[in-house]
Amino acid sequence: MSKYSMGIDFGTLSARAIIVDIETKEEVATSVCEYSHGVISEKFINGEPLPADYALQHPKDYLDALYAVIGDAIKKSGINSADIIGVGVDFTASTILPVTKDGTPLCFLDEFKNNPHAYVKLWKHHAAQKEADEINALAKKTDAKWLKKYGGTISSEWFFPKVLQILREDVNLYNRTFRFIEAGDWIVWMLTGKETHSNCMAGFKAIWSEQDSYPDKDFLKALDARLENVTGDKISDKITSLSETAGYITKEAEALTGLKAGTPVMPALIDAHAALPALGIAQSGELLMIIGTSTCHILLGDKEGEIPGISGCVKDGIFENLYAYEAGQSCVGDSFDWFVKNCVPKAYFDEADKQNINIHKLLRNKAKELPCGSNGLIALDWFNGNRTPYVNGNLTGMLVGLNIHTTPEEIYRALIESTAYGTKRIIDIYEENGIEIKSIYAAGGIAEKDELLMQIYADVTGREIQLSGTSQACAYGSAVLGAVNENGYNSFKEASLKMKKIKDVTYKPNKENTDKYNALYEKYKHLSEFFAKSKIMEELKEV
Amino acid sequence: MSKYSMGIDFGTLSARAIIVDIETKEEVATSVCEYSHGVISEKFINGEPLPADYALQHPKDYLDALYAVIGDAIKKSGINSADIIGVGVDFTASTILPVTKDGTPLCFLDEFKNNPHAYVKLWKHHAAQKEADEINALAKKTDAKWLKKYGGTISSEWFFPKVLQILREDVNLYNRTFRFIEAGDWIVWMLTGKETHSNCMAGFKAIWSEQDSYPDKDFLKALDARLENVTGDKISDKITSLSETAGYITKEAEALTGLKAGTPVMPALIDAHAALPALGIAQSGELLMIIGTSTCHILLGDKEGEIPGISGCVKDGIFENLYAYEAGQSCVGDSFDWFVKNCVPKAYFDEADKQNINIHKLLRNKAKELPCGSNGLIALDWFNGNRTPYVNGNLTGMLVGLNIHTTPEEIYRALIESTAYGTKRIIDIYEENGIEIKSIYAAGGIAEKDELLMQIYADVTGREIQLSGTSQACAYGSAVLGAVNENGYNSFKEASLKMKKIKDVTYKPNKENTDKYNALYEKYKHLSEFFAKSKIMEELKEV
Repeated sequence: MSKYSMGIDFGTLSARAIIVDIETKEEVATSVCEYSHGVISEKFINGEPLPADYALQHPKDYLDALYAVIGDAIKKSGINSADIIGVGVDFTASTILPVTKDGTPLCFLDEFKNNPHAYVKLWKHHAAQKEADEINALAKKTDAKWLKKYGGTISSEWFFPKVLQILREDVNLYNRTFRFIEAGDWIVWMLTGKETHSNCMAGFKAIWSEQDSYPDKDFLKALDARLENVTGDKISDKITSLSETAGYITKEAEALTGLKAGTPVMPALIDAHAALPALGIAQSGELLMIIGTSTCHILLGDKEGEIPGISGCVKDGIFENLYAYEAGQSCVGDSFDWFVKNCVPKAYFDEADKQNINIHKLLRNKAKELPCGSNGLIALDWFNGNRTPYVNGNLTGMLVGLNIHTTPEEIYRALIESTAYGTKRIIDIYEENGIEIKSIYAAGGIAEKDELLMQIYADVTGREIQLSGTSQACAYGSAVLGAVNENGYNSFKEASLKMKKIKDVTYKPNKENTDKYNALYEKYKHLSEFFAKSKIMEELKEV
Repeated sequence: MSKYSMGIDFGTLSARAIIVDIETKEEVATSVCEYSHGVISEKFINGEPLPADYALQHPKDYLDALYAVIGDAIKKSGINSADIIGVGVDFTASTILPVTKDGTPLCFLDEFKNNPHAYVKLWKHHAAQKEADEINALAKKTDAKWLKKYGGTISSEWFFPKVLQILREDVNLYNRTFRFIEAGDWIVWMLTGKETHSNCMAGFKAIWSEQDSYPDKDFLKALDARLENVTGDKISDKITSLSETAGYITKEAEALTGLKAGTPVMPALIDAHAALPALGIAQSGELLMIIGTSTCHILLGDKEGEIPGISGCVKDGIFENLYAYEAGQSCVGDSFDWFVKNCVPKAYFDEADKQNINIHKLLRNKAKELPCGSNGLIALDWFNGNRTPYVNGNLTGMLVGLNIHTTPEEIYRALIESTAYGTKRIIDIYEENGIEIKSIYAAGGIAEKDELLMQIYADVTGREIQLSGTSQACAYGSAVLGAVNENGYNSFKEASLKMKKIKDVTYKPNKENTDKYNALYEKYKHLSEFFAKSKIMEELKEV
């Protein structure tokens, strides 16, 4: 009799459940449900305007989606839910909410239902930048030892800036909060009746490590006296490793979802990180690029390094006894979309219509005919700022080599190439700092759809690139973690290697192109260094 | 009884005659005629392909247009041609042709009619770049004293590179040439029966000066032994000043044009330079910008200076006892046209259609609403290379400050602003080198039509800008020169001041905007210096 595991992936706009045969790797059923309120920005749910840079969500949407997708997937699969041996969950992060002692979100209480701070602060809630700046300044001043593990800067998207914003702006709500919790951990709580906090979430988003726990009391007190004892209190210091079972489906959850009570549930994964096991990436020197609107580069290493501008380096963050490094490019697909929306002339849309293909496809077809280097154009891929290596949100996009014969497809190709140079830069920085990269994998919507981009990445990096064999890598990866228990696999690593899905086709670098790109990449680096240093972009941004 | 003068302006695509009342300044008639063959590039008139960068014209087109526009203008004006007291001619330059002793173009001879070198080499014939490079290299090596007067570099568009190309590629045709002549001087010859070569043409385009004549025999011999005696031979060294009459309409010309035999004809002006007298620019410290696809900056000074990157500094080049400086921006309107053709989305064209305005007007309307600095965008206006100050055709356009919210109107405004910064740079360079600028004037299609651009130029430069009162400044300016004789004005300067046409409206700088632009201009300069020095653009161009 077949055994199945379930993966549940909470993205920015929807949740998705997948049921996987843990031996044949067949994806027997999938179900997706969008969040009713989507991302709450600009206007709050009562119609009042929200301050700038807010991005909230409603936790009720998560529960509605959770129950809907699990039930629907089981139904579609036609299997007996008793054959589902375990459940894995992944979630965007740091996506946090304040809850009561029994896990009730504060926004479910009448007194807080009109208070935006009582809702979920989504990962891309950027309104705690002031608090992030304060944390960074203090960390630099006090030479906090954890700072280098996070590339020298904490992002406003992370856990502590969001908590500090609530403390500063609504002390009453802060005081009434029993726990600040990652939404991923909260979902596990709702399924198991047991509060856990995964080391993946805490390590990458809340400055936690097994060795040193959170930032120490002196640091927190210096930040704000009221924070002195926040860890171990409103911020739990009981952290659960991904190698342990978080808990088991409760009777209540069985009634709501159709999963059998007693089914093991694993601690929550960060969504991007969940993609690694889907591709069987479980060993030192393996790099995964998740290429979408932005790109996340996750690398496994067997030692700790201090890499400038990375998002984090967390021991056991995904696999035991391995360091998981995360780096990123803030803008990839976003710049192609910007270009198509703002810079492509009517005649190109007409041509795409005539050929019955979308505009990106048309531009790719034309760009494919161009030589490496887009007839002498180079862009900097900083349309949303730069994460790695400069960690500077105020850097901007740049395009050089324009002349009155420059065509849209040349610019389009230059934008693609710029993101490839940005990726090569990250690879170089890892290796220059002693973290070897043996093999490269790609997942995500763009990796799957854009052959031209993937070939350019292979040519620019001079590396072979393997592709995810599933288009639902995050949900599938959660299912891989769900398969780790006495009825399935012995370890996450074993499950990953057994259940991995890789496409047969790989992208291999063309030596001649790589040589050409090496020369262009030197120019990209030269331009990067000039603009990162000159302050021109930052000063322009203030205009 | 009214007195009239006639100006005849030969542009790149058409010739135009204008008849002006020299006292009331009324433009009593205008006539335009396009050249039948237009610009001959890519394909020769017999259908054969031409080498790259060729731009030829047929001298018969000039004659056809000459006779047509003079006759038509006289007819339209209803005046008696006896009341036309004189004629001025301006022409693009260096636009040259080889002729026989009686002025017959070699291409009129049967044996040469299929030889491209026997036709006119238009100013923008760029196929003599190799020869220009050779001249520049030798001039640098031999420290030729004239080189600094031309900003340190001779352009392939000028007289000597074109002659050298003919010598190198067709020695037979070279040998059969009696004279190489500027087309403007040739037209004067056709009207007067007398060969003259104007000091305006020779000074700006053929490295001639009253003091030193042409490059000396040693230089020419070193360039090519066969050139040792070319000056005074195939290149005339009898140069006529603009203060002298070139000659008088012949009986033959009377029959062909309707102008009375004996009417004085003045030496040929370069077309752009002819605009100065139209605006009454005749004194030291006055700068004229002729703003079109590219911009030409002509400044009058009372002393000689060595200005980096200028196109030339010629004593008496336009007015006696004044030095005429010329500098330039290679790309102005061309970059706006490129942008509209390649980078503006369909929705904008639809909106323009709906409002029944052209797309440039729509973009200007939107760009007008934006703050100085286009929300943090800066461009380098080098889409056709840079003339002043870097004299480097391999520099390219650049755009910095892009993000995924950047709009087409922001880029459009940034392009306009970049050309304003480029103009301020030229003004600064003149002044830093001791040539004061007291007042600024503008003429040309863009100056006339684009109020937003003109206001930005006033704001960026911090200067008041006055506008030409005629839309036909070149033809009108030739008519001003035509009015200099015993029946009209005593001197070109007097005629200019009496006949000048300036619009009532001037563009005045807004102090607040100027302050903002000063900070942005510093960034433009910083970027200019980085890119001019870094070689990145040149190396990209080789890709």
